[in-house]
Amino acid sequence: MPETKYQLAELAQEIAAQIQGDPDFWVSSLATLQSASATELSFIANSQYQKYLKTTSAGAVILSPADLEFFSGNALIVDDPYLAYAKLSHKFAATQSVGVGVSNSATVDPTARVSSSAVIGPGAVVAAGSHIGDNVVVEANTVVGEDCVIGQGTHLCANVTLYSDVKIGENCLIHSGAVIGADGFGFANHQGQWEKIAQLGGVRIGNRVEIGACTTIDRGALDHTLIGDGVILDNQIQVAHNVQIGENSAIAGCTAVAGSTKIGDRCTIAGACGITGHLEIASGTHITAMTLVTKSITKPGAYSSGTGMLDNKQWKKSVVRFRQLDDIARRLKTLEDMVIENKGS
Amino acid sequence: MPETKYQLAELAQEIAAQIQGDPDFWVSSLATLQSASATELSFIANSQYQKYLKTTSAGAVILSPADLEFFSGNALIVDDPYLAYAKLSHKFAATQSVGVGVSNSATVDPTARVSSSAVIGPGAVVAAGSHIGDNVVVEANTVVGEDCVIGQGTHLCANVTLYSDVKIGENCLIHSGAVIGADGFGFANHQGQWEKIAQLGGVRIGNRVEIGACTTIDRGALDHTLIGDGVILDNQIQVAHNVQIGENSAIAGCTAVAGSTKIGDRCTIAGACGITGHLEIASGTHITAMTLVTKSITKPGAYSSGTGMLDNKQWKKSVVRFRQLDDIARRLKTLEDMVIENKGS
Amino acid sequence: MPETKYQLAELAQEIAAQIQGDPDFWVSSLATLQSASATELSFIANSQYQKYLKTTSAGAVILSPADLEFFSGNALIVDDPYLAYAKLSHKFAATQSVGVGVSNSATVDPTARVSSSAVIGPGAVVAAGSHIGDNVVVEANTVVGEDCVIGQGTHLCANVTLYSDVKIGENCLIHSGAVIGADGFGFANHQGQWEKIAQLGGVRIGNRVEIGACTTIDRGALDHTLIGDGVILDNQIQVAHNVQIGENSAIAGCTAVAGSTKIGDRCTIAGACGITGHLEIASGTHITAMTLVTKSITKPGAYSSGTGMLDNKQWKKSVVRFRQLDDIARRLKTLEDMVIENKGS
Repeated sequence: MPETKYQLAELAQEIAAQIQGDPDFWVSSLATLQSASATELSFIANSQYQKYLKTTSAGAVILSPADLEFFSGNALIVDDPYLAYAKLSHKFAATQSVGVGVSNSATVDPTARVSSSAVIGPGAVVAAGSHIGDNVVVEANTVVGEDCVIGQGTHLCANVTLYSDVKIGENCLIHSGAVIGADGFGFANHQGQWEKIAQLGGVRIGNRVEIGACTTIDRGALDHTLIGDGVILDNQIQVAHNVQIGENSAIAGCTAVAGSTKIGDRCTIAGACGITGHLEIASGTHITAMTLVTKSITKPGAYSSGTGMLDNKQWKKSVVRFRQLDDIARRLKTLEDMVIENKGS
Repeated sequence: MPETKYQLAELAQEIAAQIQGDPDFWVSSLATLQSASATELSFIANSQYQKYLKTTSAGAVILSPADLEFFSGNALIVDDPYLAYAKLSHKFAATQSVGVGVSNSATVDPTARVSSSAVIGPGAVVAAGSHIGDNVVVEANTVVGEDCVIGQGTHLCANVTLYSDVKIGENCLIHSGAVIGADGFGFANHQGQWEKIAQLGGVRIGNRVEIGACTTIDRGALDHTLIGDGVILDNQIQVAHNVQIGENSAIAGCTAVAGSTKIGDRCTIAGACGITGHLEIASGTHITAMTLVTKSITKPGAYSSGTGMLDNKQWKKSVVRFRQLDDIARRLKTLEDMVIENKGS
Repeated sequence: MPETKYQLAELAQEIAAQIQGDPDFWVSSLATLQSASATELSFIANSQYQKYLKTTSAGAVILSPADLEFFSGNALIVDDPYLAYAKLSHKFAATQSVGVGVSNSATVDPTARVSSSAVIGPGAVVAAGSHIGDNVVVEANTVVGEDCVIGQGTHLCANVTLYSDVKIGENCLIHSGAVIGADGFGFANHQGQWEKIAQLGGVRIGNRVEIGACTTIDRGALDHTLIGDGVILDNQIQVAHNVQIGENSAIAGCTAVAGSTKIGDRCTIAGACGITGHLEIASGTHITAMTLVTKSITKPGAYSSGTGMLDNKQWKKSVVRFRQLDDIARRLKTLEDMVIENKGS
């Protein structure tokens, strides 16, 4: 990996920044304020970190006009330093040599159509009837089932599995271990045994979607499971059959969404939440970590469940009292009646 | 995928239904009441959906005698429409071309026995001493470890991993990303370091078991981990070493079951639950979503833990008070004593 | 798998045990007290199981001096029978035939360096610039990205995925389905859309680390994600970008650790916990199952959150009252004021 260097002026242009200091300063890479060296560019996105501006060894810093007074070195001045950092980060990413064309050890069905600009890695499989678009990368040992469509510029990392009838838009990134299109958990109980319901729907994923490692998105029972444009899903998320996730919503790791629930646009759902089935979550809703959602949310806002962390001994006491809560409330009411009666008498 | 069509009379016969309307009506596929077209068959399994019977475009509907009065079109009349839908769903499932025989790029150890009717997909591996039964499908890039046995009609989807000594019964379906037989989490602490305990047991899985995507079932420490006949496990479930799951139990996604816990027959465990180790859960128990189970359950019933979802501000207030619960209860008791004393005086 | 047998005297030597009974007794394998046969060796690590000493059919038992009086058969006497069992367990583990050298169907980049004593299984991929150390095993269909380093004696099970720039120490064991080095969940929100932040850091894993099936460890945003020596991670754990886990800490299945959190040494974190980002957890902390950690822990101890499991009907009542908790506490205060005032009057 040869290092790529950029001069401050070039980087400033990318993010429409004003420059303080030397526009010819060479930036070797990006780093945090605490760990940056004299050739590195850092950023400050939160005023809590102003203290590090005094001590940082960074050769240059991306900062907002408000933080400028605390730093006299080379600087790129923008309104949103975090966004600027996000944009510049891609210039310093190592380029992976994904190869070209179809690997010798890949298996591509004769009826599949693969763009000549696509890359199919070693051991990857593309099944019958699938269409792999321009500049798509299918990394090693990834399996694309039948009748899938992968839009241009989409990247399937290694060891991804797509079942049949999964259609993914353009410029998506699907991380390793993700499984898309497995059967939804649909069974009818018949005299104590489970009769499987064939899952006839597929999965439809929009453009610019990122799906994390080991995240699972089941195919629909009858209609499709739908993931909107710009959705970002972290690792180990479970999306059940016929779930719909609206545009630009973000879900953090290990959250589970049960069947047929519709999540609106621009929702932010923290990690390890559980959302039960057949709900509707209003656009713009925020759900905090490890919340159990069992009712639809019609009004955007922030929602939570659970209890705060306590020392184990104190917690045990609270847990015992939680059991008694209804009794406690009733006793309080009785006492209120008595005292008020007593007062009145 | 050529579409398969069936006449209503043929479908009626499959599910022992009475027909209302035209027995020669051609059904092209299955759909929900809301989305069905004029050639599609729908169903109503819940009287809440009766309103859709009036407006559905479905060409035919599976319904119960009780709902018949609300629908005058073509109908298949059965006592359990959901079960009937489950049974008919398989007739409309697209047939995947899984190929025949052993793929050129598969690796099958010379000491493995593979039925001539089995399919071993591209890149799949079958290790020494394993036995792949009749009509078994091992999809692409799935790895079957040593000395495994896969019963007839069982289907391993792509990118499944079986470690050694995993024995799976007949007609099971194991979804992609599932890992069966990895080491249980067994370690002895020795002066602050972890001494690994070799996991000498295997995994034994019954017949007609379905295991979801990215679900992990660890091998036993000494005895085997046991999954009974007819068990259904959703995605991303963790089953630790020496767990036993009784026949026809169902577990929804993201639930974790810790080591040596025995779950009885016909239990239904919702998603994202945590069940600690060395417990016994009575047959027929139902556990609601995201419940933490830390004690054995001897009496079947429904069990829950956690708190309901609240607006974040209100929740924070409750969380503060949860910490004070023991104090609140004690103060209530004091007050009760005072008031009763006061009254008595 | 030919069975390996050992005489009691040989096993005693391995664990520095004193022998009661016949030193020439042949041990065929290990088993629990309840299931051991007359040729098997068992152990008792918990005095709760003393009752089984009377009825066990085990041919020999590992026990502590305190339990010796309850068992007159062949015995290996040690101070820590569980540790002794852990050590002996490896002698009875079946040897897997992992093969030798690089499998014909593996793909190794010409610029990768692979030790002649390493094993690269069928379908495995080793990308450019990576270094596979002595006696390393890379099992079937595992993918090692670019510029990775795998230290000697480390074992990657089947279907593991390492992205680029993942460095793993010596004598580690990485289970199937694990994904190490996928992008952290880093995005800047720009006018309602998510701007991806390139994840420039890698992952650094120490020596003697075990990582469970389908566990995901993301690469760092700028610095590396760090896993210390001797750490043990169970299945389906999510470790976000820039997390640091200190030496000899243990985390049970399905726990999620959000970005940049630092977990100290020798922590034990139970299953299904959620730990939010940018926290510090003191060395030696214990967190019980399914706890939500949203604040740093500065003092080692045991911590918990959540509520205990209840019968669903009782639970619903408590949940309703949990919502009213702030009101209940305020009403109690009012009543206290009234009663005390009343008393004082």
